[in-house]
Amino acid sequence: MSNGTSDRAQTALKKIREFVRDELISKEPQLAGKPFREILPTLNGLRKQVKSLDIWAPFLPPRYGGLGLALPEYAHVSEELGRSPFGHYVFNCQAPDVGNMELLIAHGTEEQKREYLLPLVQGETRSCFSMTEPENPGSNPVMMSTTAHKDGTDYVINGHKWFTSSADGAAFVIVMAVTNAEAGSPYTRASQIIVPTNTKGFHIDRNISVMGEPGEDYASHSEITYTDVRVPQKNLLGAEGAGFVLAQERLGPGRIHHCMRWIGICERAFDLMCKRAVNRELSPGKPLGSRQMIQEWIADSRVEIEAARLMVLKAAHVIETDGMSASREYVSMIKFYVAGVLQRVLDRAIQTHGALGITDDTPLAYWYRHERGARIYDGPDEVHKSLVARLVLKRYGFDVDGREKGTR
Amino acid sequence: MSNGTSDRAQTALKKIREFVRDELISKEPQLAGKPFREILPTLNGLRKQVKSLDIWAPFLPPRYGGLGLALPEYAHVSEELGRSPFGHYVFNCQAPDVGNMELLIAHGTEEQKREYLLPLVQGETRSCFSMTEPENPGSNPVMMSTTAHKDGTDYVINGHKWFTSSADGAAFVIVMAVTNAEAGSPYTRASQIIVPTNTKGFHIDRNISVMGEPGEDYASHSEITYTDVRVPQKNLLGAEGAGFVLAQERLGPGRIHHCMRWIGICERAFDLMCKRAVNRELSPGKPLGSRQMIQEWIADSRVEIEAARLMVLKAAHVIETDGMSASREYVSMIKFYVAGVLQRVLDRAIQTHGALGITDDTPLAYWYRHERGARIYDGPDEVHKSLVARLVLKRYGFDVDGREKGTR
Amino acid sequence: MSNGTSDRAQTALKKIREFVRDELISKEPQLAGKPFREILPTLNGLRKQVKSLDIWAPFLPPRYGGLGLALPEYAHVSEELGRSPFGHYVFNCQAPDVGNMELLIAHGTEEQKREYLLPLVQGETRSCFSMTEPENPGSNPVMMSTTAHKDGTDYVINGHKWFTSSADGAAFVIVMAVTNAEAGSPYTRASQIIVPTNTKGFHIDRNISVMGEPGEDYASHSEITYTDVRVPQKNLLGAEGAGFVLAQERLGPGRIHHCMRWIGICERAFDLMCKRAVNRELSPGKPLGSRQMIQEWIADSRVEIEAARLMVLKAAHVIETDGMSASREYVSMIKFYVAGVLQRVLDRAIQTHGALGITDDTPLAYWYRHERGARIYDGPDEVHKSLVARLVLKRYGFDVDGREKGTR
Amino acid sequence: MSNGTSDRAQTALKKIREFVRDELISKEPQLAGKPFREILPTLNGLRKQVKSLDIWAPFLPPRYGGLGLALPEYAHVSEELGRSPFGHYVFNCQAPDVGNMELLIAHGTEEQKREYLLPLVQGETRSCFSMTEPENPGSNPVMMSTTAHKDGTDYVINGHKWFTSSADGAAFVIVMAVTNAEAGSPYTRASQIIVPTNTKGFHIDRNISVMGEPGEDYASHSEITYTDVRVPQKNLLGAEGAGFVLAQERLGPGRIHHCMRWIGICERAFDLMCKRAVNRELSPGKPLGSRQMIQEWIADSRVEIEAARLMVLKAAHVIETDGMSASREYVSMIKFYVAGVLQRVLDRAIQTHGALGITDDTPLAYWYRHERGARIYDGPDEVHKSLVARLVLKRYGFDVDGREKGTR
Repeated sequence: MSNGTSDRAQTALKKIREFVRDELISKEPQLAGKPFREILPTLNGLRKQVKSLDIWAPFLPPRYGGLGLALPEYAHVSEELGRSPFGHYVFNCQAPDVGNMELLIAHGTEEQKREYLLPLVQGETRSCFSMTEPENPGSNPVMMSTTAHKDGTDYVINGHKWFTSSADGAAFVIVMAVTNAEAGSPYTRASQIIVPTNTKGFHIDRNISVMGEPGEDYASHSEITYTDVRVPQKNLLGAEGAGFVLAQERLGPGRIHHCMRWIGICERAFDLMCKRAVNRELSPGKPLGSRQMIQEWIADSRVEIEAARLMVLKAAHVIETDGMSASREYVSMIKFYVAGVLQRVLDRAIQTHGALGITDDTPLAYWYRHERGARIYDGPDEVHKSLVARLVLKRYGFDVDGREKGTR
Repeated sequence: MSNGTSDRAQTALKKIREFVRDELISKEPQLAGKPFREILPTLNGLRKQVKSLDIWAPFLPPRYGGLGLALPEYAHVSEELGRSPFGHYVFNCQAPDVGNMELLIAHGTEEQKREYLLPLVQGETRSCFSMTEPENPGSNPVMMSTTAHKDGTDYVINGHKWFTSSADGAAFVIVMAVTNAEAGSPYTRASQIIVPTNTKGFHIDRNISVMGEPGEDYASHSEITYTDVRVPQKNLLGAEGAGFVLAQERLGPGRIHHCMRWIGICERAFDLMCKRAVNRELSPGKPLGSRQMIQEWIADSRVEIEAARLMVLKAAHVIETDGMSASREYVSMIKFYVAGVLQRVLDRAIQTHGALGITDDTPLAYWYRHERGARIYDGPDEVHKSLVARLVLKRYGFDVDGREKGTR
Repeated sequence: MSNGTSDRAQTALKKIREFVRDELISKEPQLAGKPFREILPTLNGLRKQVKSLDIWAPFLPPRYGGLGLALPEYAHVSEELGRSPFGHYVFNCQAPDVGNMELLIAHGTEEQKREYLLPLVQGETRSCFSMTEPENPGSNPVMMSTTAHKDGTDYVINGHKWFTSSADGAAFVIVMAVTNAEAGSPYTRASQIIVPTNTKGFHIDRNISVMGEPGEDYASHSEITYTDVRVPQKNLLGAEGAGFVLAQERLGPGRIHHCMRWIGICERAFDLMCKRAVNRELSPGKPLGSRQMIQEWIADSRVEIEAARLMVLKAAHVIETDGMSASREYVSMIKFYVAGVLQRVLDRAIQTHGALGITDDTPLAYWYRHERGARIYDGPDEVHKSLVARLVLKRYGFDVDGREKGTR
Repeated sequence: MSNGTSDRAQTALKKIREFVRDELISKEPQLAGKPFREILPTLNGLRKQVKSLDIWAPFLPPRYGGLGLALPEYAHVSEELGRSPFGHYVFNCQAPDVGNMELLIAHGTEEQKREYLLPLVQGETRSCFSMTEPENPGSNPVMMSTTAHKDGTDYVINGHKWFTSSADGAAFVIVMAVTNAEAGSPYTRASQIIVPTNTKGFHIDRNISVMGEPGEDYASHSEITYTDVRVPQKNLLGAEGAGFVLAQERLGPGRIHHCMRWIGICERAFDLMCKRAVNRELSPGKPLGSRQMIQEWIADSRVEIEAARLMVLKAAHVIETDGMSASREYVSMIKFYVAGVLQRVLDRAIQTHGALGITDDTPLAYWYRHERGARIYDGPDEVHKSLVARLVLKRYGFDVDGREKGTR
């Protein structure tokens, strides 16, 4: 199936697939498990190769050095990159930078683009996005404690954030803060503001240890205190009070990217599982794959991956043709559905490998740890399920707002 | 999404959708639960309406009175018809007649077409397909006991079959019997032979009681004894020894039909579930749909139905473009996957209805009983899962035949 | 393990087990699928045998002709009886009569006992319990529309009930009706009143068709209209306003009975599954049980049945030693847990039987249909799960009442 | 419920529970995530406290400094210890030392006891057990490559092992090696031999990185090469060729220990989940625990943990009263069943915590990583499921050996 991708996209996809296989997967044994700063020189070398092959940042418009692929086209790229833990980084397609680049392209002033976007698209700097707060549920955007009040021509920001991924070593952060506490709708109270990380009062308290790893540099999640952090008001991104609208806009395509990355992981895990099923003998001439329980895992995984991919491509298509708002139901559906497929496929692949599966001799255990978060970040499963149900029931006359009044 | 269907198909689909809603679903309360022969006059009246609307048997070529829809187009029709338990019958799209018509069109002699096919396509007669034997596992075609030996210009058939659906009242049966017991490959030993049901020695022992219903006429599954049943050799369908090849050919599109019918059932069950969620109050102003457990069922059902439909359409596309053989993996995947979705969606819809869900006041309980067989007929889940796994592993060098040698 | 049952109980259990095997299971083929009134003479003959063997109604106190078994002892009996669809009826242990007998013994006046209880314990009459209303959610006892107002020395009852099981042919009904609409707590508004079914104004509208069967006599679920049904106030059972308290009291042991009956069904289904696994050959010398998928179903079923039984016995023990109130958490846990095990085990047993599994040649399809209700009646899964969670969280300071105020 | 434990056991249990709560759980924040050698002084201090409280190594006979608890009694202790990641180590109840102590007590010579057992029971040394080989499936004991051939009064051992847990820093290893390659039954070919880790030719190739952690000292899993490792034949443990019999003997009680440890983990995770459900607000006055999806996780977890505990206690009872051989079915059932409950409960607890759940601020993520192995070590789920099924089917006449002949 051509998936309706252009010839140009097909050509790029082929080059990307080969690069991932020949240059990334083959280097995994020497890169895996090492501190990020230790492997950074190698990654930078690989980035240079990618640039020279003209497959750099394929989601970016050509004027920013990318290939200008449409969302459904880039979806396929994200799958290919997902097959290696190093894929997205090496192609400058890594979260959270992708989302920040898209925001800056769509809403940045010329000055913001020059100062923050250009170094980012060229891979010279990194950035982060600071929204989640430990004291408040991510699922309820009304509850946000970080504030930015105006003082002269500046904003003065105070607050406490965590899970600001990749803050360690980032050049700047885009922070969500309440600027208009008195706005009628709680959804118009916050704004997005660019803060260089060397601003006074910006302090990384720690890289949070996640699944056994505090991590460092790009591979980290920071807890951050903002104490009277002062930046000029021209650092406002988009309109004041538009923080949530922009965040939503940022999340839609971001979920396509994530979901296709997860499908890439699934395909790699599936590939490892099949190889193991064929090569591991339970007794002479009797490979693991001859056992029905393993066969069931393979069959269930195969159909779930196929179905998941079709769903994500459908969602990408709906975003592309009908816009973000019309696609909310699809985007929420794929978020929890594909995250579930991912977890099950990884679990089966590990089980098929036996003791080898829990070692770091394959990337399976890495993904098992790192992607447990897939069912949590960008909205936990239960929030997306509830949203899908309410959007469906709205078509049946269910009074969502009445309900919410009722339950709060 | 246009799904790539032609304008003609779109027009037909719209008329069919309206007919199902206005003429079939509305009549369910008066038809449901009655003996088949009692409701037959009503069904025949509806069939006349369908003919007069030019939406009769949409899968048939125009020269046989149909619309000549391509498989992916007819898939959508089958979904629409599936929304009512009476849909396929009223449009002359019911199994097993559909499969027999397709077989006769592709492989029947002119005489066979004149005598057996024509009355069938016009809805004047019914037919059945006699393959499964109670003593032998359906999953192993090598194990078949029914024989047809040549005697002069006749075949003389002896055997014991069951689950010959709709035999009660059928004009003829297409029976699978071993004609070439000594053939090298066990897959070339059986043939398909047309037997008029009024032939001497053909005896319906009983309509098997299934899930509480022996049923009758079209709505039945017969156990049949063949005792020296004598038919002319010109009643052979296709080549001698081609029984399994033809059966496989018959099953591929048949599974698309079934799967899309199941999706139609899912959509109807989903619709009933959502209506219930909105209209049933747990306390004043607090509908069932405000509860998260119900919301989870709705969200899970929505995404599973969407994913299932995309998978079936993909399989139909693969059959259409690459042929039956290339589509085996997809066809087996959708068979077990969609049957599973169907069972889960029906289960959730029933649970949402509470006590009402197990009554026959909605069609949910009917489907719950009738479609438990979906995971069994045309190959149980486990056979399809094992086949998918072996087809996948073959690409990794897994020696399927070696294995089979090993395990038999 | 002796399970702490007395010698007397052990002896009775052995006789009961043998009777079920030799007299009931062996007669199933001739009884199954027939209208209830047609098999009633045979069942009555079996009841006589049971009485003569001194194993009649083992849960009843000796003065009422029973064995006076303790609840944990009777639990084992209920399991044995559950192995055949006819077990409980033949031993006069069938719902809803058991619950009514227990109510009358505990709360009936001498006159009520003489008139209603005695014929019941001897198996000469049948009774029913009329609580559920089609317009109101069973899960919210506050919402009940049936009323009984006093008029002279009578109650005059008006209302609409359904799922009054076994009303067809019953001598009397115990009906729940609101007698004290203005009572402070909604839980003290209703009372239980005995109504002979030949009272004027008591009308069975229909036997509700459930899973394809309207049924008749004992094997039915009725929809009933009460129109100015007049009975003397001495027909009040227990105190006025005590309807819910008595209903709760009735449900606790009733759930032990049901759960152990379900375990009996599970064991029978498991037995059929294992026999099939050993006797059905996929190819010569290669039984179904050699396939890992079947093995997984057997292993999962075995452990789930064992775990379920231990849980029910534990719950029975807690009721016996700590009382009904202290056991609420356990009773709700087993209700949804065992119903789930039952459904899974039946599903696997059916799948193992292939086409045979959906026929009525085994009792599996009967239970599959009849016990889908197990997850609904006496409180659907979701109500019990929510209750268990709230009882647990109460120990952590969760303000259940505050919450309920919040959500209503 | 007293669980039939003695007063002495009850008293010890109470002290242990308090110690775990007051001394271990409270110290977790300062111990978690640190390298093992760094926290060892603290752990040694805690061990001293345990000794002074007379609750050291409760499974050991008094003459070796323990409490001499029976297996079902110690089961409860293992649950209590399981509530903290440091419980078993601090009480000298940690695998693999427990199993080695039991082996040495039952089969060690006086000299072996003096030299290897005594320092072990006093917590002065550690040991390990070297069985699994990377090249051979652990599920098939016939396939073992490590050999020990006799040379004079010595054994000379050659082989390659991995997942020899805690080898780093151990004083000795008990290694499984083939001593009698020509023995009739493959199950009598291997022996267990004690090897001091300072023996020439014993080489730890690496501590295998598992789920992101190579670990060190006790908290490690080593890959080991044995190159002409020479030890005196008096180092043979038990009889020559008895390796598998002893390994089986070691595994039975070991699985009770593990399963109860897992239940301790489950209870701790459940406790954390409930606290979070009560304390985390989604909106003011609306805690997480008011949401039905969370309630379902709590209810499902509660009943699964209860059922799992009853099953393990039953298995311990069967081992104690009927012996290891009679308990094989139960022991295999709890192995896969409780491992499954553990994984589900941890998963739900993490999801309830949202982003906090994947951090190392609670022990949930530690267990999520470390206990993924629970479904693999000591036999993967699928091996135990297959075994349970075959033991069950044997009672139905299933010819296990015939089958095996058939499938190989």
